[in-house]
Amino acid sequence: MKSNNFPSGIDRRALVSSLALLPALSGTLLSTLAEAQTTSETALASWNDSPAKKAILDFVRTTTDRASPQFVPPEDRIATFDQDGTLWVEHPIYSQVVYCLDRVPAVVEKDPKLKNVEPFKTVLSGNREAIAKLSLHDLEKILFATLTGMSVDEFNADAKKWLTSAKDPRWKRPYTELIYQPMLEVMQYLRANDFRTYIVTGGGQDFVRVYSQQVYGVPPEQVVGTATGTKFGYRKDGRPFLTKEPKLLLNDDNAGKPEGIHLMIGHRPYAAFGNSTGDRQMLEYTGAGNGARLMMLVLHDDAKREYAYGPAQGLPASRVGTFTQALYDEAKKKGWPVISMKSDWKRIFAFEQTA
Amino acid sequence: MKSNNFPSGIDRRALVSSLALLPALSGTLLSTLAEAQTTSETALASWNDSPAKKAILDFVRTTTDRASPQFVPPEDRIATFDQDGTLWVEHPIYSQVVYCLDRVPAVVEKDPKLKNVEPFKTVLSGNREAIAKLSLHDLEKILFATLTGMSVDEFNADAKKWLTSAKDPRWKRPYTELIYQPMLEVMQYLRANDFRTYIVTGGGQDFVRVYSQQVYGVPPEQVVGTATGTKFGYRKDGRPFLTKEPKLLLNDDNAGKPEGIHLMIGHRPYAAFGNSTGDRQMLEYTGAGNGARLMMLVLHDDAKREYAYGPAQGLPASRVGTFTQALYDEAKKKGWPVISMKSDWKRIFAFEQTA
Repeated sequence: MKSNNFPSGIDRRALVSSLALLPALSGTLLSTLAEAQTTSETALASWNDSPAKKAILDFVRTTTDRASPQFVPPEDRIATFDQDGTLWVEHPIYSQVVYCLDRVPAVVEKDPKLKNVEPFKTVLSGNREAIAKLSLHDLEKILFATLTGMSVDEFNADAKKWLTSAKDPRWKRPYTELIYQPMLEVMQYLRANDFRTYIVTGGGQDFVRVYSQQVYGVPPEQVVGTATGTKFGYRKDGRPFLTKEPKLLLNDDNAGKPEGIHLMIGHRPYAAFGNSTGDRQMLEYTGAGNGARLMMLVLHDDAKREYAYGPAQGLPASRVGTFTQALYDEAKKKGWPVISMKSDWKRIFAFEQTA
Repeated sequence: MKSNNFPSGIDRRALVSSLALLPALSGTLLSTLAEAQTTSETALASWNDSPAKKAILDFVRTTTDRASPQFVPPEDRIATFDQDGTLWVEHPIYSQVVYCLDRVPAVVEKDPKLKNVEPFKTVLSGNREAIAKLSLHDLEKILFATLTGMSVDEFNADAKKWLTSAKDPRWKRPYTELIYQPMLEVMQYLRANDFRTYIVTGGGQDFVRVYSQQVYGVPPEQVVGTATGTKFGYRKDGRPFLTKEPKLLLNDDNAGKPEGIHLMIGHRPYAAFGNSTGDRQMLEYTGAGNGARLMMLVLHDDAKREYAYGPAQGLPASRVGTFTQALYDEAKKKGWPVISMKSDWKRIFAFEQTA
């Protein structure tokens, strides 16, 4: 986490209230419109011709050709994608954490005694450096306080509102436009070949489900994420509703990813995409199956067009989206292609001009 | 639970070893073959013309006709089905409980000190009346002991083996043939109209997923059930695997059904089918949505062709699949059609001759 461009939750609040001025989540509607990329000639248009691109094309050919000994029947064609750092930007800090920080004032308004309680006090101070130094434990407190305690319907409405208004400070665009166009093309290409594409994220399942269909063409039931429980109850008028509870059901990171895949999907994926140590077990689990499997890792090595962090390959270290040298070595040893953002991708975002 | 025809887990063990003599899970492959029932004239062939049948046809018409004010876009077309007593026979006791009782000798063989510990001792005794009197707490102990502690792969292989060999004592057929043909037709008809059909069961998610595709045409990822956690680990050779842990993640019954639907699907269903008080909250949650919704309950009122139990409408009381008069009254009040097995269904099982 770099404190120098850490976005303050407080500054951002103004944006939330200026809803009407801002564009809706339209930037990446491409996901549904561009589903027509079915042939290997037209697919993956934002990819340079490279071993990484070839690995994807070869995998799809070998698993979908009925004459191939590694043919996979359509019902088993499952591909899983990490989100943060694999499908969209995760630096300087996860977008959902920005959302949670932005929600702190509303939470404190409902429960004023939190005003002088840490870590809420620090968040309210707007002191970016202090916020950037919050411990994982403090962040967890903020996540629970801002993501639970309301009805599912209230949460969905609030998250949707934020997503249409908040903007990333570097690109000045909604977070849902900071999607990696080449990865969207991988999802589209796999779907065009009868794969079901799942998001398997350490991020909040309910949060990602709010925009997954519109942004990625992935329906809510194909989002596996960190999940808290809900509690069924009745409103005064007798109508039933669900309340989000501060009870962790699934911590969908590291070993939690294959565990979450088993819980929510019940098959082993044939392809898995990630970018950090949190994805290691998902890729290992995918690779432990028989037949052709594709495991790939995105390496953030493009400080100019996006960010550069590792510490693999001598890139700067990072607390967010850590890609260790050990993971890099495991990938090389096991034949998992590593995607270089710098050299494998013609463009990173849909809004960029192609070179 | 009727002790007079309660199947003993011990007697049944002989069957498990006579695998080769018995037919495979072919009886209900109909589910995939008969998917062609697309028109309302040919659909629901095993249903008598009745208000229940009409309710299904009307619901599909009104939600799929683009000109209808209650049109539902295909991505939102979700239908959920309870399993035990709604899709297959649950009397005299849930089939999965029979499986668990049948597994007790194998569990005791691995851990011999259980031999003299209750409730295992009683199960091993083969005393049907004593087994039938086991408390819910005892049954839970048996479920945890027999459904966890092994790898996911070992569990799947064992459950599959049992399903191809064990037979229901009344019909002398595999449990997976005791599927209600009229309900299978409802699933097929809904799928032919672009609904995704989910099973939402109090039974074990992993257990049902073993046969759901073959028997119901429902893939594993569309089975929501009572779920225990798994634990990721590595075998000696470094290959990763998942172990089933005795930790309850989701108790998918009563209020747990809408909670499970939110966790696993993330949309509210448009149609929900059940047969007992355990399905009440799922139907209420479904009915709380806007637009056309279909909630239906199967009433077991046919002792001749299947079983008769309630205690609704003066039918005999039952500990398994209880349908109270209060639930019946709620259904009438809210306009949930109640399906009479006796008068609404031409036949109950695929293997029956049609009248």
